[in-house]
Amino acid sequence: MGRKFKILDCTLRDGGYYNNWDFDSNLVDVYCEFVESSPIDYVEVGYRSIPLTGYFGEYFYCPIYVLQRLKKNMPSKDLVVILNEKDIKVSHVKDLLSPCVGIISMVRVAVDPKNMERAIELAKEVKTLGFLVAFNVMYMSNWKKDPGFLGSLVEIEGLVDYFYMVDSFGGVMIQDIKETIDIIRDFSKDIPLGFHGHNNLEMAMANTLESIENGCSIVDATITGMGRGAGNLRMELLLTYLENKGLVDLDFNALSNIVAKFEELKSMYQWGTNLPYMFSGANSLPQKQVMEWVGLNRYPLSSILTALKNQKDSKKDN
Amino acid sequence: MGRKFKILDCTLRDGGYYNNWDFDSNLVDVYCEFVESSPIDYVEVGYRSIPLTGYFGEYFYCPIYVLQRLKKNMPSKDLVVILNEKDIKVSHVKDLLSPCVGIISMVRVAVDPKNMERAIELAKEVKTLGFLVAFNVMYMSNWKKDPGFLGSLVEIEGLVDYFYMVDSFGGVMIQDIKETIDIIRDFSKDIPLGFHGHNNLEMAMANTLESIENGCSIVDATITGMGRGAGNLRMELLLTYLENKGLVDLDFNALSNIVAKFEELKSMYQWGTNLPYMFSGANSLPQKQVMEWVGLNRYPLSSILTALKNQKDSKKDN
Repeated sequence: MGRKFKILDCTLRDGGYYNNWDFDSNLVDVYCEFVESSPIDYVEVGYRSIPLTGYFGEYFYCPIYVLQRLKKNMPSKDLVVILNEKDIKVSHVKDLLSPCVGIISMVRVAVDPKNMERAIELAKEVKTLGFLVAFNVMYMSNWKKDPGFLGSLVEIEGLVDYFYMVDSFGGVMIQDIKETIDIIRDFSKDIPLGFHGHNNLEMAMANTLESIENGCSIVDATITGMGRGAGNLRMELLLTYLENKGLVDLDFNALSNIVAKFEELKSMYQWGTNLPYMFSGANSLPQKQVMEWVGLNRYPLSSILTALKNQKDSKKDN
Repeated sequence: MGRKFKILDCTLRDGGYYNNWDFDSNLVDVYCEFVESSPIDYVEVGYRSIPLTGYFGEYFYCPIYVLQRLKKNMPSKDLVVILNEKDIKVSHVKDLLSPCVGIISMVRVAVDPKNMERAIELAKEVKTLGFLVAFNVMYMSNWKKDPGFLGSLVEIEGLVDYFYMVDSFGGVMIQDIKETIDIIRDFSKDIPLGFHGHNNLEMAMANTLESIENGCSIVDATITGMGRGAGNLRMELLLTYLENKGLVDLDFNALSNIVAKFEELKSMYQWGTNLPYMFSGANSLPQKQVMEWVGLNRYPLSSILTALKNQKDSKKDN
């Protein structure tokens, strides 16, 4: 077993963009049973958040009774929650995270590169509670042309346990992986890196393996690829591949069981890539708008594409 | 426009494994309209074959009236048919192909490496009729350990216009592409290479781009990936990516129109990868059996996986 990297499953967290983080508790129980039997190291089970306007389901807030049940069902796994840096202030951290001590191992922070300094203050506060901290830093396809924010990497060595490159637009190609890692290494030789891919261009698998090849310490995937927009690397694909390479042991019955359950959900929500997502990936456009248009199931592909092309010269994201 | 490689669409040919080569003629007309307006260079429209036992639809035999209609609808494109070397003898060639002169530009031959010598005789006969000839040579994942058959490459320089590497099991990874091309180049410096991928491990896109990067002269894709087993590289993905790179011009309305039509067919036949195809890809098992089991829609994933694991130590292909 020569595996030198960790595997993180974030099905409930990233998949929640499709069902408003409302997962059936029976499904979650089966999910936990699979994860507990699997080689997955970290399980990101949702967000912790202050109350936001609009409806968000159970796994967006992850109340403590939910976390306790998850931990009871996955006692050998490291549980993870994520904070949206844009919503969470330093002053919220104690209330949100103190009750998680002893249940959660790691807290991830979703970070826009332009808010790195604010995120560092947040991380310091999270760290006082004893959690591992990971930064999920967005828009990695832009870093090559604007690497300035990476200067703050010296500040976060020792503070942040994993520094994730997030392919927010799903447009990253394999040569970008190595080039981006090389740039990061100019700023920090040692910080452990992670990769979180999206599958717009069906590059999530190739990019993830390239990340591992280039020394990433942790990679993300989700069951059936359930995740925002075009979705993520499929966990069943990563694990099946790694099993063949002798890098993980795998109970294929447990795996096929949980995949079948999520395939049912997929037939309802239809995640995965399609022409509008391919276009948004190739052109580095945000997934959010595409997801709304595609999700309405009301516009023909051609209308969505036309709208996206019109947007191409005036990009915005949430 | 710096594109140095050709694009071949083989939707009707490889997709035919799902519908027995029975395509609705209205759908084919819309398909032709798209292809004619597209940057696709070659269109493989089906097989030509002697009568085989069992039912095979129109695009398995490609009668001349079908070919004439296709050519009339795609006058600017090079039409291609493929011969299955295992079924077609030298003595069949004149009857099968003489009527195609002036309609078809290229004849591909699907070749098992162990039958290379026989295929060369077939190619010589095809060549007398003035067609371009391409060899689609199967099982490329085995070539590294058994490259002996590549010795015959010296015989086919000048005879065969494209020598295709076919990822029959869908298990090829990007490092295999370069390594396999390096081996081929030990035997022939100049023969133009092609790549035909399958998407079991969601590597079709990455492998195709890696092939191009390593000097391949022609690559295959199909609309919505319609193709045997886990299917092929999606043409809409390849074209959308190349458009962004400025390598092709693309009418996105025509593209989204034809993609929407084939998505309807996909909702019926359900091609694309899934756990059994991932397993067969990772373990270099033949697609045919998986396709039958998955297609029956009768067995749970776990039963198929168990059967595949039992087969793993006694591989066979058709």
